[in-house]
Amino acid sequence: MQIAIFLYDRFTALDAIGPYEVLSRLPGTTVVFVAEQAGPVATDTRMLSVVAAAGIGDVRHPDIVLVPGGPGQSVASLMEPGPVHDWLRAADEHSSWTTSVCTGSLILAAAGLLTGRAATSHWLALERLAELGARPVSRRVVMDGKYITGAGVSAGIDMSLELAGRIGGRDTAEAIQLMIEYDPQPPYAAGSPQTAPPDLVARLRHGSRHASTAARS
Amino acid sequence: MQIAIFLYDRFTALDAIGPYEVLSRLPGTTVVFVAEQAGPVATDTRMLSVVAAAGIGDVRHPDIVLVPGGPGQSVASLMEPGPVHDWLRAADEHSSWTTSVCTGSLILAAAGLLTGRAATSHWLALERLAELGARPVSRRVVMDGKYITGAGVSAGIDMSLELAGRIGGRDTAEAIQLMIEYDPQPPYAAGSPQTAPPDLVARLRHGSRHASTAARS
Repeated sequence: MQIAIFLYDRFTALDAIGPYEVLSRLPGTTVVFVAEQAGPVATDTRMLSVVAAAGIGDVRHPDIVLVPGGPGQSVASLMEPGPVHDWLRAADEHSSWTTSVCTGSLILAAAGLLTGRAATSHWLALERLAELGARPVSRRVVMDGKYITGAGVSAGIDMSLELAGRIGGRDTAEAIQLMIEYDPQPPYAAGSPQTAPPDLVARLRHGSRHASTAARS
Repeated sequence: MQIAIFLYDRFTALDAIGPYEVLSRLPGTTVVFVAEQAGPVATDTRMLSVVAAAGIGDVRHPDIVLVPGGPGQSVASLMEPGPVHDWLRAADEHSSWTTSVCTGSLILAAAGLLTGRAATSHWLALERLAELGARPVSRRVVMDGKYITGAGVSAGIDMSLELAGRIGGRDTAEAIQLMIEYDPQPPYAAGSPQTAPPDLVARLRHGSRHASTAARS
């Protein structure tokens, strides 16, 4: 089974690496990192580069496609028609699963792959997902047929464990969970807008609106 | 503040990228990935390479040192005296925090930095940590003065959120947690040997003993 994780300039590293860490442990699986061109791809912080082993032209029919997210401006450049949308649509025709983490779902939606489908995204991007024709659901992992979307950044770990269970069965998924010792114990309860301090949620919403207005102007 | 994350052949990606994703969001922080030589470093699966931006010789006095883990054989090559131990000890002399994830603690211990200290590691490596002179504690995150160690792979996220709180305060750490939407909801409860099915725990322990016997013989 071949899993293609699509990288692009300023993607968010954990969106891609969380699922990779889980899915690469599925027996009989190869994960290949792809980008428009093979080579190092810089993440959103500019402090890290991850190597795309292949160009999208070299990986035509992966069994699983995964699109990580990134901050507004990085994703904005992938919202227009072009070779990435063409590749995503062609890959999706043959894929067993088409998946995203965080704002990666905006890219899938812009490529026309989530129209009318239930999907999730980073909590700050759910409205945008609706504008692109998907049915946003505020859940950590959303499955609609073969389309699986995860919420923000770290949700890719939960999403891919769920997917590992569907593919390899519960026992295999549990073995992966135990080997990566995924027994989360966050020191704070601020991981979702429902549980975080309301003033923090308001502040980040405000900051995000300003950032996206700037990005669109 | 400079944070050096040390990469080496066959490290486990999520051990390094989880903490990077948290700590790079601390205001005024630069994360630099280092290795014995700068350039791409392949992970344990051989399906991914991450770029070390600098060689260890170029990053002498980081404020935080972080050593990720890897499977037995990858870590084994870093258990002997050599330039990596020299660098770790010199960096530790000036660091505010010296940290590890997973079996990265075995490397710190082999370099003599955890002698007599409370520390943790991947659940399959706790005994080995004792052999190296540390006091193993079966907890997700263990702090002993400026030495912070995290348990297996995904525990680096919890460890670094805890560290972010110590450095930036609770409000900053909570903002990071909310931006990476770290509201974990694993689909199974198999993340620790205490909660996983006992036969699965036994099977992985058995496999690990065989692997480490093979590696040492």
